[in-house]
Amino acid sequence: MTDLLIRNLRPMGAPATDLLIRGGKVAVIAPGIDAPGIATEDAGGAIAIPGLVEAHTHLDKTVMGMDWYENAVGTALSAMIKNERGARRELGLDPARQSMRHALALVGNGTTHIRSHVDVDTENGLAVLEGVLQTRDALRGTVEIEIVAFPQSGLMIRPGTLDLLDRAMAMGADLVGGLDPCGIDRDPKGHLDAIFALADKYGRGIDIHLHEPGEMGAFSLELILERTAALGMKGRVAISHAFCLGMPDWNRVEGLLVELAAQDIAILTTGAPSREVPSVKRVQSAGLRMGAGCDGVLDTWNPWNRPDMLDRARIVAQKNNLRADADLEVVLDLVTTGGATVMGVTDHRLAVGCTADLALIPGRTLAEAVALGGPVQLTVKGGRVTGREGKPVAEVP
Amino acid sequence: MTDLLIRNLRPMGAPATDLLIRGGKVAVIAPGIDAPGIATEDAGGAIAIPGLVEAHTHLDKTVMGMDWYENAVGTALSAMIKNERGARRELGLDPARQSMRHALALVGNGTTHIRSHVDVDTENGLAVLEGVLQTRDALRGTVEIEIVAFPQSGLMIRPGTLDLLDRAMAMGADLVGGLDPCGIDRDPKGHLDAIFALADKYGRGIDIHLHEPGEMGAFSLELILERTAALGMKGRVAISHAFCLGMPDWNRVEGLLVELAAQDIAILTTGAPSREVPSVKRVQSAGLRMGAGCDGVLDTWNPWNRPDMLDRARIVAQKNNLRADADLEVVLDLVTTGGATVMGVTDHRLAVGCTADLALIPGRTLAEAVALGGPVQLTVKGGRVTGREGKPVAEVP
Repeated sequence: MTDLLIRNLRPMGAPATDLLIRGGKVAVIAPGIDAPGIATEDAGGAIAIPGLVEAHTHLDKTVMGMDWYENAVGTALSAMIKNERGARRELGLDPARQSMRHALALVGNGTTHIRSHVDVDTENGLAVLEGVLQTRDALRGTVEIEIVAFPQSGLMIRPGTLDLLDRAMAMGADLVGGLDPCGIDRDPKGHLDAIFALADKYGRGIDIHLHEPGEMGAFSLELILERTAALGMKGRVAISHAFCLGMPDWNRVEGLLVELAAQDIAILTTGAPSREVPSVKRVQSAGLRMGAGCDGVLDTWNPWNRPDMLDRARIVAQKNNLRADADLEVVLDLVTTGGATVMGVTDHRLAVGCTADLALIPGRTLAEAVALGGPVQLTVKGGRVTGREGKPVAEVP
Repeated sequence: MTDLLIRNLRPMGAPATDLLIRGGKVAVIAPGIDAPGIATEDAGGAIAIPGLVEAHTHLDKTVMGMDWYENAVGTALSAMIKNERGARRELGLDPARQSMRHALALVGNGTTHIRSHVDVDTENGLAVLEGVLQTRDALRGTVEIEIVAFPQSGLMIRPGTLDLLDRAMAMGADLVGGLDPCGIDRDPKGHLDAIFALADKYGRGIDIHLHEPGEMGAFSLELILERTAALGMKGRVAISHAFCLGMPDWNRVEGLLVELAAQDIAILTTGAPSREVPSVKRVQSAGLRMGAGCDGVLDTWNPWNRPDMLDRARIVAQKNNLRADADLEVVLDLVTTGGATVMGVTDHRLAVGCTADLALIPGRTLAEAVALGGPVQLTVKGGRVTGREGKPVAEVP
């Protein structure tokens, strides 16, 4: 199933052509390809884009397909964390089943790569991680899933968590996570020393949630920069949210961006409408790799997010006031190739020799296709059809 | 067609019941209504909400159903205004046809009331207004349309515009519009004196676009307050956008809100994600009437907006960080009853004796229905079915 001929598609809005996939790679892009005996799809003139990359989500949190979660929590970060830790059991939130539902919904919506944070805490132990690892394995070949072992409830403030994180890495988590070293964990030195040491021990990268605004966040960023340099981890660290880079002080942000670029630290944004967020164009101009994510979808935190990276492109674009056709391509790049570079995927393009990960979407021009935001007509992962008409091909539990 | 029985609906998420409409008004809400010979709809357990109110849009601007508009304009307000003024002719943008398409798309999505600004300028004269007036008349009984005569290109900076505005009011525009007295029109006293005098002359209300941020906007607000009081126009003035009320200085905003409440000045928001915007909860707590709108949809300004007030509820909620179930009801109120109060409609509720303007939407609870955001199953205006499955009943040109 890794050979496939797609007829009548328009790569990035170009004139209609055919695209032949052999052994999971793009082999030929040309009109009127002759490839007898190969499975064939007719794109009907749809626009082809690289597969969508969900670079910041939480597959373990969704209540998709369950009862409506009645949210009466308030919006303080610590309150939402505490509420969720208990709610997992009360709701009977099965991490294997729920992460499968969430991941497959993303696949139906054109996604070929996912980076998911997964909660590791002293109340739920490693059970949540085990469930998402099952989903990662079950979906191999359908969607690539990177797992970040994530101390959602704090590390230094909850003794025992560091040992669990260590075991999470041994079990197969791909990256070490972190969370607001000042704002949540109340011990920035302790928190960052711990997670950098763990990443060093396993030879893995880091992806840190940094909601801290303004100077508090900038301080944490500086501590992250120091450790990245000291441990020679250039190019292996990502900061999620990085709200502090949205602060109004232009010069302060400029200085931080220069240092981040020097350590090749990547930025992941959700374009959170209610917060100050890093500017996509500014971060990209500074030479940083940048991706985007929908964050948690339909969970105890938030009812608004959808498992749909074209919907997220719209949210990020609106937050960044990106409107012109050229800017719509900027935001499309963010949710495809941009996210891929953060995940270490360097051939995420519609070009001969590249892995055949792509999505077909409706639209007369590329910009219109981005603005329409789907529905995704076909998702293709390594030459295999994984989604059709907005739905995953695989059965949803 | 103004008698209708709707079976098996859940008003605001309450247990299933029937609702009988006689003469366009809600006559009975009770289970098992016996009304032989009356047209009947089965809601299938859908949730009923008051009709959606689009309280800030531009029916004259959309390119819906036309070629994709390739936007290469940049985001400066004055550049977008100038670009559009010329583009109207180049694109062959027929205001009657386009406003009909836009209004009917809103109707399909559950809308029963629209307030639309309509451009009046020295280049296009009153032709744009004439087109939208045609649509208003053609859709009487389908959707209520209020028209604001809007000096989009400026008033004092484009001599001749005031005379056109005067003629627009004589032709049947419902309200006098205004626009950034400092930021665009460069003469706050001149601009505001002119539009208040015009409103006074015709005994009509005012709705002013105020994008001006921070202290510039606050200054314009103060000038508006002074004129509202001096002319006894309490309760007849609305401010659209009012970005200055989103400025960080809590005390400054508090003072303005107290004065706005004293003059019963209404606020209309789009929840613009890239700007500082007035807080919904704060404005409502201050006792002001408040509604919301999608702004222009698919036009030369912006590719992202949709003719869909449930989509707008999501945007406003995300911008305001409203997540809890109770807060979802706040935002639902904003896009229904809140907008209606701004348009002077005081019986916009699902209650006996009220005009039967309502929408049926899917969801297990009211909060879930708001979060899902449709598709709207049925739109009913004065007892008449005007939309079905997200589409208008009337033919779209």
